[in-house]
Amino acid sequence: MSQILEVLVQRKSVRTFKDKPVGEEMVQLLLRAGECAPSWGDGRPWHFVVLEDRKIITRIPEFHPESAVLLKCPLAIALFGEPQKEGFPGSWPLDCAVAMQNMLLQAQALSLGAVWLGIYPHERRMHALEALLEVPPHIRAFGVAAVGHPAEKLPLREERFDPSRVHYGSWQGSRGKSEKPKECEDRSEHCGGEEGRDDHA
Amino acid sequence: MSQILEVLVQRKSVRTFKDKPVGEEMVQLLLRAGECAPSWGDGRPWHFVVLEDRKIITRIPEFHPESAVLLKCPLAIALFGEPQKEGFPGSWPLDCAVAMQNMLLQAQALSLGAVWLGIYPHERRMHALEALLEVPPHIRAFGVAAVGHPAEKLPLREERFDPSRVHYGSWQGSRGKSEKPKECEDRSEHCGGEEGRDDHA
Repeated sequence: MSQILEVLVQRKSVRTFKDKPVGEEMVQLLLRAGECAPSWGDGRPWHFVVLEDRKIITRIPEFHPESAVLLKCPLAIALFGEPQKEGFPGSWPLDCAVAMQNMLLQAQALSLGAVWLGIYPHERRMHALEALLEVPPHIRAFGVAAVGHPAEKLPLREERFDPSRVHYGSWQGSRGKSEKPKECEDRSEHCGGEEGRDDHA
Repeated sequence: MSQILEVLVQRKSVRTFKDKPVGEEMVQLLLRAGECAPSWGDGRPWHFVVLEDRKIITRIPEFHPESAVLLKCPLAIALFGEPQKEGFPGSWPLDCAVAMQNMLLQAQALSLGAVWLGIYPHERRMHALEALLEVPPHIRAFGVAAVGHPAEKLPLREERFDPSRVHYGSWQGSRGKSEKPKECEDRSEHCGGEEGRDDHA
C-alpha cells in the first residue's frame, strides 16, 4: 500500500486525548495543510480559528450535543467560510470540507488524533459558533476539528471498500476484471455502533 | 516537510495529459482512496462512475464550458451523491468533496495528474451529467475528476499560506509567536491568471 493510501485509510476519528498540549509546530503544520486545499476557482474562502483556551473550547458542547470530545481536548481548530470569496455560488462549504480533510490527514501523519465535528449545514450550530467566536456577519461557521494526542493506541482501521459504489462506463456498468479489495466484515463499529452520531466517522 | 504535507502542497490541477491509459491498478487505488473518506455519521453517500470511453468522456464539455481537459484525457471518474444515505440533511456534498480530494491526493502520490471539474451545485450541469450517465432519479451529480499521465513535468507548486486567514482564540485574535511560512509572491498564476476558471485550482 502506498504511503499516502496508508494515511488515507488509517485516518479515523479519535475522541479521547492525553492531557498534553499540541505543540506550536504541529499547529502550524495543520494550518498549512488546511490552507493548501484546492478550491473552486481558487477562491480559498476559508478562515481558521485556533482554540486552545479551555474556557472557550468547552462552551461548544453547550450547543453541539455530539461534541463531548471537546470537554477534554487540548486543541480545536474552528473552520469558517467567507462566501464572498467563493468561486461559484454555494461552493464555499465544499472548499472548507477539503481544507478540513487536509487537516485531518496532516494530524494522522503527525500521530495526532482528530475528529471533525459537523457544524454546517446545521443552522442552529452555525449561529451559535459564530456568536461564540464573534465573527463578522459575512463569515459563516463550517466545522470544528478536535485535535490532541490519542489517549490510547488505536487498532489500525480496517479498509472498507464497497464495490457496489463503483460503476463502469455508466450507472449500470460493471466489469469483471475489477479487483475487489477486501471489505470490512463488521461494519457495525462504524455504522450501527455509531448510529445517531453526527460527527464524521 | 513531512511526506504527507509534501503531497498536500504539491497537488495542483493538471490539464494536459499524455496519450496513455491509466492502468487498472491505479484506477483501483484512486477508488480505494475515494471510498475511505470520512463522512457525516459515516453515511458514505457516494458513488463513483469510471469513464474510459472517449465517446462518453468527450460529451461532458458539451455542457461544461470549463472541461476542455476532457477532450484529451484517458480517464474520468464521475462522483455522484446519494442524499438518502447522508448523515445529516445537506451533508452529502461535503462527503463527496472529501472523497474527491482523497482521489486527487492519491493521483498526486501516483505521479498522475488530475483536476476536479465542478458540477454541484451548478444545477444545469448536474442534470446534464445525470442524464448522460443515466443515473436513477435519487442520485445527484457532484463532480468529475479528469485523470491522466501529465504531458509535461510541472514546476513544483509554491506553497501558499495566507496568515490573515488564521485567527487565535477568537476572530480578532492573533499571536506574535506564529511562524509565517513564506507566502507565494506572485498569486496571479493561481488567481488572476486563472480568473474565470471554475474548476478547482
